[in-house]
Amino acid sequence: MTLLSRLTLIGVGMIGGSIGLAARKRRLADRIVGIDTYDRNLETAIRLGILDHGTTDLKEGMNLTGIAGPFSDAKPRSELIVIATPVGTVPESLRQILDIANRPENAGRRILVTDVGSTKNAIRSEWEQMTSKNRSAACRYVGSHPIAGSSSSGPEHADAGLFENRTAVVTPMNSDRDVDVGLLALFWQSLGSTVLCLAPDIHDRILARTSHLPHLLSSLMAESLHANEAPFTGPGFHSTTRLASGMPSLWRDVVSSNSDAILEAISGFENELGQLKQAIEKKQWDEITAFLQLAKRNRDALDKKRMDSCKTGTQK
Amino acid sequence: MTLLSRLTLIGVGMIGGSIGLAARKRRLADRIVGIDTYDRNLETAIRLGILDHGTTDLKEGMNLTGIAGPFSDAKPRSELIVIATPVGTVPESLRQILDIANRPENAGRRILVTDVGSTKNAIRSEWEQMTSKNRSAACRYVGSHPIAGSSSSGPEHADAGLFENRTAVVTPMNSDRDVDVGLLALFWQSLGSTVLCLAPDIHDRILARTSHLPHLLSSLMAESLHANEAPFTGPGFHSTTRLASGMPSLWRDVVSSNSDAILEAISGFENELGQLKQAIEKKQWDEITAFLQLAKRNRDALDKKRMDSCKTGTQK
Repeated sequence: MTLLSRLTLIGVGMIGGSIGLAARKRRLADRIVGIDTYDRNLETAIRLGILDHGTTDLKEGMNLTGIAGPFSDAKPRSELIVIATPVGTVPESLRQILDIANRPENAGRRILVTDVGSTKNAIRSEWEQMTSKNRSAACRYVGSHPIAGSSSSGPEHADAGLFENRTAVVTPMNSDRDVDVGLLALFWQSLGSTVLCLAPDIHDRILARTSHLPHLLSSLMAESLHANEAPFTGPGFHSTTRLASGMPSLWRDVVSSNSDAILEAISGFENELGQLKQAIEKKQWDEITAFLQLAKRNRDALDKKRMDSCKTGTQK
Repeated sequence: MTLLSRLTLIGVGMIGGSIGLAARKRRLADRIVGIDTYDRNLETAIRLGILDHGTTDLKEGMNLTGIAGPFSDAKPRSELIVIATPVGTVPESLRQILDIANRPENAGRRILVTDVGSTKNAIRSEWEQMTSKNRSAACRYVGSHPIAGSSSSGPEHADAGLFENRTAVVTPMNSDRDVDVGLLALFWQSLGSTVLCLAPDIHDRILARTSHLPHLLSSLMAESLHANEAPFTGPGFHSTTRLASGMPSLWRDVVSSNSDAILEAISGFENELGQLKQAIEKKQWDEITAFLQLAKRNRDALDKKRMDSCKTGTQK
């Protein structure tokens, strides 16, 4: 039996398309529905066999007839909606989904919503505000962050293996039900990821250091490159600045929705850089060597871990 | 006719081996001789067809019988020695080569020496000191820096295409002869590189920004990663910190031989990072967007240039 009666993707770009394609290959859902503002994305995704149905209208997408009926304990199958649009647009999608789910005609449905945004705390806070007066039993939200990506965009670059041997973070709060967290964990595991759980604010503090700061440093190096220096860049500069090619609007939203943790990460990095500078000024070459050795050890360990990561597991 | 009567490689690792293999494929030299402290490297390189002769003794390597005779203007063929060992060891090799070349038995030979180190000014200064009293006509030095590399090491990873569509910098000073600079330029061009000339000190100031600072930032990110953060790194962190896997001893030498320019590059970066931090603190999202857009434009232009770079050319 499939895990989900229905998988709905809001945003059918490279990430949404990859989720759909991976879920299709692994037969995780009876039906996959896509909602996107661009007809072209929907047509491409249907042509590639990613979607059964596509629509530009959220309400139509959520209410398509022929979907599975109410959640039953005997057959614990559920609807999952994955919002795969930029971080800044997730709260508005959540608001609309909640509004539609709470209408009388949807009584009895049980919908779990998640998203794939790189910051989790701001989205979760908005969700808490939306549901503070009326916690919906029919529609619940738990955030996700699959740490995977590609520099390509659009469903034509969908990759069914995108989440294999990657970490997917699920970001529940204490008030969330185990059954929802478990379903999400199972979903990402089924796509090939190792699932780890973190509270939204802890997720954001860690990712500020492992993703958002590296992105900004990469962008700073690219931004400050003078045109006449470009011929003197090699493969090293290329890999170090690869992230700078990311979509500016998307990353502006990441920065604005996690600015406190990012500022803390920048301050920490400024301290480290200052110490390194001092060591160079004082010509402390032994300290520099030790620093480079530790950096290499940490970096090489990541490659090793990546190779070992075929096993999946959950850590709370 | 081959470009060189003889190509001597001092250091037959991945870089030296790739130079030999590329020169062999393109028939640039009548004979390729390798000198390395490790017998294993020599044996591997001979087995792979990179070298005709290999020895651990510099004098023996330079004096092998059967080499071409004196340089003749009618047949402008020359001997080239390429030192492909870490930056810190280049001056000592130069000293030994000069000593051997100046012996009576080598009168009449005409030897051009270059190296492939990532910093050029310190090496050149040492060369000027060595030759200040007695400028040798038989043995001259002009620095090179092929901006290419790989994370692999050893001659078993030699790649005949390593220098294709890359920049090779040749770093002459005003006192150098055009014929030497021209020979070196032709050599790197023949290996597939675009050759650009820069004075050694200007090379070092530019590379501090395009290579040495990115390396240190990459190492700082890897070094400051806590073990429990490692599972939350993705492909972005991986590419941004790829350089941190470089050999610590090699990079310690790069830093110590170019510390002034690197300190200047760090100070410049500290300023830029401080401005970015301020913009985030003040929530100037439009400025952040403009910054990310410029970074993306600069970075995407590099990829475009790389694709256009099949044509080679010289720029003085």
